[in-house]
Amino acid sequence: MQFRVTLEYDGANYSGWQLQAGPDSIQARIEAALTKLFGSMIRVRGAGRTDAGVHARGQVAAFTAPRPFDAAELKRALNALLPPDIAVLDAAAVDDSFDARRDARSRVYEYRVLNQQWRSAFDFRHAWLVRDALDDAAMNAAAAAFVGEHDFAAFRSLGSEEKTTVRRVYRSEWRRDGAILIYRVEATAFLRHMVRAMVGAMVEVGRGKLTPDGIAMLLERRDRALVPAAAPPEGLFLIEVRY
Amino acid sequence: MQFRVTLEYDGANYSGWQLQAGPDSIQARIEAALTKLFGSMIRVRGAGRTDAGVHARGQVAAFTAPRPFDAAELKRALNALLPPDIAVLDAAAVDDSFDARRDARSRVYEYRVLNQQWRSAFDFRHAWLVRDALDDAAMNAAAAAFVGEHDFAAFRSLGSEEKTTVRRVYRSEWRRDGAILIYRVEATAFLRHMVRAMVGAMVEVGRGKLTPDGIAMLLERRDRALVPAAAPPEGLFLIEVRY
Repeated sequence: MQFRVTLEYDGANYSGWQLQAGPDSIQARIEAALTKLFGSMIRVRGAGRTDAGVHARGQVAAFTAPRPFDAAELKRALNALLPPDIAVLDAAAVDDSFDARRDARSRVYEYRVLNQQWRSAFDFRHAWLVRDALDDAAMNAAAAAFVGEHDFAAFRSLGSEEKTTVRRVYRSEWRRDGAILIYRVEATAFLRHMVRAMVGAMVEVGRGKLTPDGIAMLLERRDRALVPAAAPPEGLFLIEVRY
Repeated sequence: MQFRVTLEYDGANYSGWQLQAGPDSIQARIEAALTKLFGSMIRVRGAGRTDAGVHARGQVAAFTAPRPFDAAELKRALNALLPPDIAVLDAAAVDDSFDARRDARSRVYEYRVLNQQWRSAFDFRHAWLVRDALDDAAMNAAAAAFVGEHDFAAFRSLGSEEKTTVRRVYRSEWRRDGAILIYRVEATAFLRHMVRAMVGAMVEVGRGKLTPDGIAMLLERRDRALVPAAAPPEGLFLIEVRY
């Protein structure tokens, strides 16, 4: 019997989603809770891997339960067993053919930039503090350059092993909420560090150190060495996985 | 040379404002940063004492510096020396007669209630999770009963040593922002645990277990034993101290 769970987590205290990142991974915590609940070792499969410090408001994972279980009770039981910074938002029984990763049609991420002179005692785990004045309009022009099908070879971390570095971006835009600038991007899938590399480049546009046209050039040149430093992980949230 | 600093802090990892609460108090951290900066022991005086787990967006404290210092540089230096969950929002030179506590005309607090069925992986350090449906209108009627001059003897913790338990409340109201209910209260001053006791009682009104009229009765009776349990500290924020 397969279940799909939708998860929210504050990644600040974890080494990332995947088990290989060690005992402090989100996956390890979820597997530990499931193992406690069912009395046998259970493996979960996530829709996407989030890095150390990256958060989720709608990560999706699936696992096979060794015995029947009511979905609403599963949600309650897991929330009772998981640490306070990992929460189950939804649990549902799904067909055994469901594959959390391969069946996903798109993923939505958000990146939060705190754009003010002084640091915040509250937002430092959930936003990137950028003290320089940022030009929102230029950042939105830069964001638009990512929409469509592109080879993102330059916007990723080295060591990624992907068959192709071509991805389709459906939506890419910034909005401002007071001192917070929020970038929202939806794509078929993302390469490792892709959103953070995109944000790093767009913030350089916002600072006036790169033009919006420069983004199209960086995509075309496919040379990582030309792309500005990636934005730090604490501003990144996996918002939704769409099926 | 006296300075007034306006502070923001996430109280989740601290034992409260005052030094007596131990080395993990906010006051101890600020005094340690000042002592490092000036090379001699410096005592700060806060406008109000916040308990363990209580946050501030506008705590005010004052101290006497042993030598002249530029206020803008003081802000930058302190922010560099303090931990990331304590930030200086403002620093200004003030007259030696300024007394952060006695000169305050009023204090503004906010209390955040997360009113939803499921727990949140993000808000658990900054809001009280109340799963029961709450009647906003009844809670606002209850809040109105606190406005004016009242004896708050029933709405405080035992062991408070205050000359009088009479306080004047200028403003007391709830607003809703999605699943978050925010209570804002301004008064001349507050007794220990007073806001949390008031919120605990108003949430009972929201649950339908107490009527708005019951609040006036609780004030009149001045009996702590009749007042419902105080709300937990994590939802409370000292927002502003007015002079």
